[in-house]
Amino acid sequence: MNESEPVRLYELVLENGRSASPFVWRVRYALTHKDIPFVSVPIGFTDIPKIFEGRFKTVPIIEHGRTAMAESWDIADYLERTFPSGTPLFSGPAEHAMVKLMDAWFMAEVVRKLFRLYVLDVYHAARPQDKAYFRQSREARIQGTSLETFTADRAQHLPALRESLAPLRARLSVQPFLGGATPNYADYIALSAFQWASSVATLPPLDPSDQPLLRWLDRGFDLYGGMGRDPRQRPLS
Amino acid sequence: MNESEPVRLYELVLENGRSASPFVWRVRYALTHKDIPFVSVPIGFTDIPKIFEGRFKTVPIIEHGRTAMAESWDIADYLERTFPSGTPLFSGPAEHAMVKLMDAWFMAEVVRKLFRLYVLDVYHAARPQDKAYFRQSREARIQGTSLETFTADRAQHLPALRESLAPLRARLSVQPFLGGATPNYADYIALSAFQWASSVATLPPLDPSDQPLLRWLDRGFDLYGGMGRDPRQRPLS
Repeated sequence: MNESEPVRLYELVLENGRSASPFVWRVRYALTHKDIPFVSVPIGFTDIPKIFEGRFKTVPIIEHGRTAMAESWDIADYLERTFPSGTPLFSGPAEHAMVKLMDAWFMAEVVRKLFRLYVLDVYHAARPQDKAYFRQSREARIQGTSLETFTADRAQHLPALRESLAPLRARLSVQPFLGGATPNYADYIALSAFQWASSVATLPPLDPSDQPLLRWLDRGFDLYGGMGRDPRQRPLS
Repeated sequence: MNESEPVRLYELVLENGRSASPFVWRVRYALTHKDIPFVSVPIGFTDIPKIFEGRFKTVPIIEHGRTAMAESWDIADYLERTFPSGTPLFSGPAEHAMVKLMDAWFMAEVVRKLFRLYVLDVYHAARPQDKAYFRQSREARIQGTSLETFTADRAQHLPALRESLAPLRARLSVQPFLGGATPNYADYIALSAFQWASSVATLPPLDPSDQPLLRWLDRGFDLYGGMGRDPRQRPLS
């Protein structure tokens, strides 16, 4: 495989057409960071088993020449290896290892809380033909509780979400990006979660006084010609 | 200042003479990583105001020629700058930024829980002349609650501590150190907290089945000729 082959990115879209998956957004940022042109292929939840002979269970999926692969970290590593002429995603193995640690923390402490806040909003925003599948698969993860019951008291969980973001806030109070002066893959991981939230949130996650985070979100959404900006987004504070 | 000047490290010791501060341990690891010889100057809590004309409130403190400074991150950055011939602590600014983020997470989610478990154990292990100061200053941080009351139900907090370590466990299940194949400053930050715990813990923090973490602790305590090994340590599981 070489750098001149086109990359196709299969991404989940909501009823309004917006790409919402936080894992797809990571790959969008990785491709753009490395200046790799790509073609977007919009699909819905229930299309995943219909493509690539059902080989993949989740998005993102990329297709590049004869290579097709899923899993955002595998894709990031593939892009880094296969497109050496683009801006590197990682300065070396130590930064790579640290971003993987950041991801493990962020998924466990932050994304889990965002799921609790927004899973019903995703259901409402999904394409009509995806709704039944989405409800069934997500309710299976929460021991069969209905999405409505699971999210009924969601506003009570906002303080814990905001507190879990303290490590980001601490760093972003003294530097523009988590990566330092310029964004790195840790920024993309966190920005992608907020891209997801901003696609569906009927309850804003952040307090309007949370300036370190809100200013970083502004900077992050403005990156690469405002790739993260979309009139369909909902307010995050 | 140059590399040939000797470095003196002021470190807090317990009644049994063991250096216990997690922040001092970070600097011990940083000095050793960079192969910088140093002279240890053991002091107690109540000695800090008596040295350097009371300029510093906390350890670690290092003295190098005419430079004296506190704060473990400032010291790490100083050592990196001043001893360029030693093995670098950081591969570059992105790794540095990521380790700072890891530290913000680790302090908020892990060290805070260790404090709740072990603050009374530190009191009991402190030098007799430091005990009154230690009690007064720590009880002030917990709204005047006695250390005994604060820690009475500590065993109930073990599950939350162990869960907070999930990100470390996830990474250490697939690689030997947080830094990857070799330890980096994130390993030293986490190992230092466990050095502190192992200096005083009358209740082990970890479950004996927690092999990913326990094997990493073994590897970490064995580093640099077993610098982290000491017959005065208490079991961590």
